[in-house]
Amino acid sequence: MSIIDFRLRPPVGGFLKMALFTETERRDRTTRTHGFEPAPSARQKSIDLLLREMDEAGVTTGVITGRNSGRYGSIGNDEVAAIVDAYPGRFVAAASIDPTDRKRATAQVTDAMKAGFRAINIEPGSYPLPMMVDDRRLYPIYAHCEDADIPVIIMAGGSAGPDLSYTQPEHLDRIAADFPTMKIVVSHGGWPWVHQVLHIAFRRSNIYLSPDQYLAQLPGMDDYIKAADGFLADRFLFASSYPFTPVKDYTAWFKRLPIRPDSMEKVLYRNAARLLRLDAKPSGPTRNRCSPDIHPGRTS
Amino acid sequence: MSIIDFRLRPPVGGFLKMALFTETERRDRTTRTHGFEPAPSARQKSIDLLLREMDEAGVTTGVITGRNSGRYGSIGNDEVAAIVDAYPGRFVAAASIDPTDRKRATAQVTDAMKAGFRAINIEPGSYPLPMMVDDRRLYPIYAHCEDADIPVIIMAGGSAGPDLSYTQPEHLDRIAADFPTMKIVVSHGGWPWVHQVLHIAFRRSNIYLSPDQYLAQLPGMDDYIKAADGFLADRFLFASSYPFTPVKDYTAWFKRLPIRPDSMEKVLYRNAARLLRLDAKPSGPTRNRCSPDIHPGRTS
Amino acid sequence: MSIIDFRLRPPVGGFLKMALFTETERRDRTTRTHGFEPAPSARQKSIDLLLREMDEAGVTTGVITGRNSGRYGSIGNDEVAAIVDAYPGRFVAAASIDPTDRKRATAQVTDAMKAGFRAINIEPGSYPLPMMVDDRRLYPIYAHCEDADIPVIIMAGGSAGPDLSYTQPEHLDRIAADFPTMKIVVSHGGWPWVHQVLHIAFRRSNIYLSPDQYLAQLPGMDDYIKAADGFLADRFLFASSYPFTPVKDYTAWFKRLPIRPDSMEKVLYRNAARLLRLDAKPSGPTRNRCSPDIHPGRTS
Repeated sequence: MSIIDFRLRPPVGGFLKMALFTETERRDRTTRTHGFEPAPSARQKSIDLLLREMDEAGVTTGVITGRNSGRYGSIGNDEVAAIVDAYPGRFVAAASIDPTDRKRATAQVTDAMKAGFRAINIEPGSYPLPMMVDDRRLYPIYAHCEDADIPVIIMAGGSAGPDLSYTQPEHLDRIAADFPTMKIVVSHGGWPWVHQVLHIAFRRSNIYLSPDQYLAQLPGMDDYIKAADGFLADRFLFASSYPFTPVKDYTAWFKRLPIRPDSMEKVLYRNAARLLRLDAKPSGPTRNRCSPDIHPGRTS
Repeated sequence: MSIIDFRLRPPVGGFLKMALFTETERRDRTTRTHGFEPAPSARQKSIDLLLREMDEAGVTTGVITGRNSGRYGSIGNDEVAAIVDAYPGRFVAAASIDPTDRKRATAQVTDAMKAGFRAINIEPGSYPLPMMVDDRRLYPIYAHCEDADIPVIIMAGGSAGPDLSYTQPEHLDRIAADFPTMKIVVSHGGWPWVHQVLHIAFRRSNIYLSPDQYLAQLPGMDDYIKAADGFLADRFLFASSYPFTPVKDYTAWFKRLPIRPDSMEKVLYRNAARLLRLDAKPSGPTRNRCSPDIHPGRTS
Repeated sequence: MSIIDFRLRPPVGGFLKMALFTETERRDRTTRTHGFEPAPSARQKSIDLLLREMDEAGVTTGVITGRNSGRYGSIGNDEVAAIVDAYPGRFVAAASIDPTDRKRATAQVTDAMKAGFRAINIEPGSYPLPMMVDDRRLYPIYAHCEDADIPVIIMAGGSAGPDLSYTQPEHLDRIAADFPTMKIVVSHGGWPWVHQVLHIAFRRSNIYLSPDQYLAQLPGMDDYIKAADGFLADRFLFASSYPFTPVKDYTAWFKRLPIRPDSMEKVLYRNAARLLRLDAKPSGPTRNRCSPDIHPGRTS
């Protein structure tokens, strides 16, 4: 079985200058709180080691999320595209945007999709000027993505903003209602608002849930897992949030969760593949990124 | 043992024109998410079948909640009263009101109680102009109900409004504090704010909890059940929220929950009978509705 | 092993005039909801009985929290200090303040610490004019406590204010972020916002958690306990919230919780001793209050 890791930031290029790989003490403390030891690849900042860890985990494809952040650092879409190109078949990417200029943001979205990006990544609370998920400045951008049928990943959980108000669930519910056909992936799973985000996903069929690192050893874990094997089996996504958890150990841990095989296969691969159209040919120049031959594991 | 089902909308009269019985695909998907198959009576829109299902479930009395809603449709109190009269002894009803005109609403409350209604049903988030539970326009109506000792059912959970902000628990807590002797039944149990609504019920002795359909297979279920068999044993109410779950299968499922017999009897019958004064003679013309002979099951 | 009970109000002096010991019916009903019988010392209002119950429980030291409240009554810092002095070695205390006058409050803090108090107790929602935890009027006082490295106990859970909005967790998170080196003890554990407060404690290393009475038989208990034996082992505090639970029975119950011995020792004693500097010599005249000889149990 192939596995798609829906949130992963590799130790290479511009990522090495971001908090992910510079504030290692904070990061590794978080990793241990989730019950894991930091990945050797994260400690050594080695993309080659990461690729080997992905192989050993059965992770054929990692979804790289771009970032435009104040607190956590930024990386341009060009840099992200270069990483995807440098390791053909191993990564697909979600582009970041500048939320303060709606025309520029729309152009960024268009350019990114032409360049082979598969989704847009929006992290409202971590922007240089933090925003709520339903900030009015994001609405033209959401409208554009909904109209163009582009999946939007939204970081709406964990330490997603300066304080807990940035993850309050009503903001997320509002955009799910206001853009009912926009496919929304909730990164960090809306944690700690576990009951609330499960209600939102229960009510709104355009919500996909990816609790990623916040699944492990935290309150609410059992509720997430039941949903993944129940009403959310078609909309739950597997993600390590690497480097916050190690791809190999996290995957091994995840595969032992009490989720039935059919649901597990959806969560580990099929939901993400369908959402990102990984079996379709992209229109842009980097189409090879997603051609069948880049998923060797799928035939095994 | 007799059973009172505290939230039930029969497939007859004006109810047949409401979303409950017209948006069947959405409804049946919800039913299945809760782990049940749609009731034959719901699918066939047959009141006779429903009465048979109630009999088989041991449900002697169903509490029909009237509705004045934008999104979900409306039914007049006259129509509801006609249904109650047409099936003597099987139903009692809660009247709906027009929240935008306080004088008219107060008159509606008075008329309804004279006509034999047993409670008022308020659904703030689903009104044509959605309101919070503690909207100031509802305060004169709450005051009137408190003064006249009329139970108020408030839909404050689930998809009770345009978005999740309409179920935020502080609104509910505020009215429980501001009208400390008004008996409040929380329909849909305040879900997904499970911990919060249990706090409110723990603190405010005028709160009755009826999670109804939102009890089944959803996060928080165990916490609700513990409360039903613990500090809330005297204020927890059984309800199927029919047609969202099937009366017969829901009742059978509920009776197997780990709730001790004495608490179970309170939850299935005694709490509701006391709250609605089902053993007292009503003053209005439809007094037969609640006379002892309409509860045949109670002597068995 | 010595035990420090982090929230305790003895039946003596000014405490006897407060709701704690006058509204006994409400209090005892609460006690029973938590699964305990009221303590004989609480019923008889006997400090001697309480001291015996503490002895039998192994509680060497009780942390008396002062109070300046509208609804729940008040007690002056002088009166609290007199109680501490009257029972040498058995109590340490947290001083209350007047939040409406920042200069006076700062002077109260300074005076209290000179007089041997070990922390400041702030109960925003229960002040005569209720405040949110992040009310701007409290900010100069927080700033002073942070600069002087004085622990601040904040009642932020349970019935801490007129309604549930006063315990909404974003207020707590905001002050933890705005005063990152102020040590904050969350009394009543932020209940019922269990998932949310655990997130805050997960993110902010200056948060100490004391669910006290709200741990017992309430939703969220298991999540609190896992945290006490996991990522919060160094910042979880044991407290009976006496007279709301009986010191002896609560301690016996707590010691049977599934918390490993090393974590248990931290929670019962070491975290509180470190936070309150119970092994250091205070500078004020009441230094004997915390001298080694007052912890006879510690050498056993």
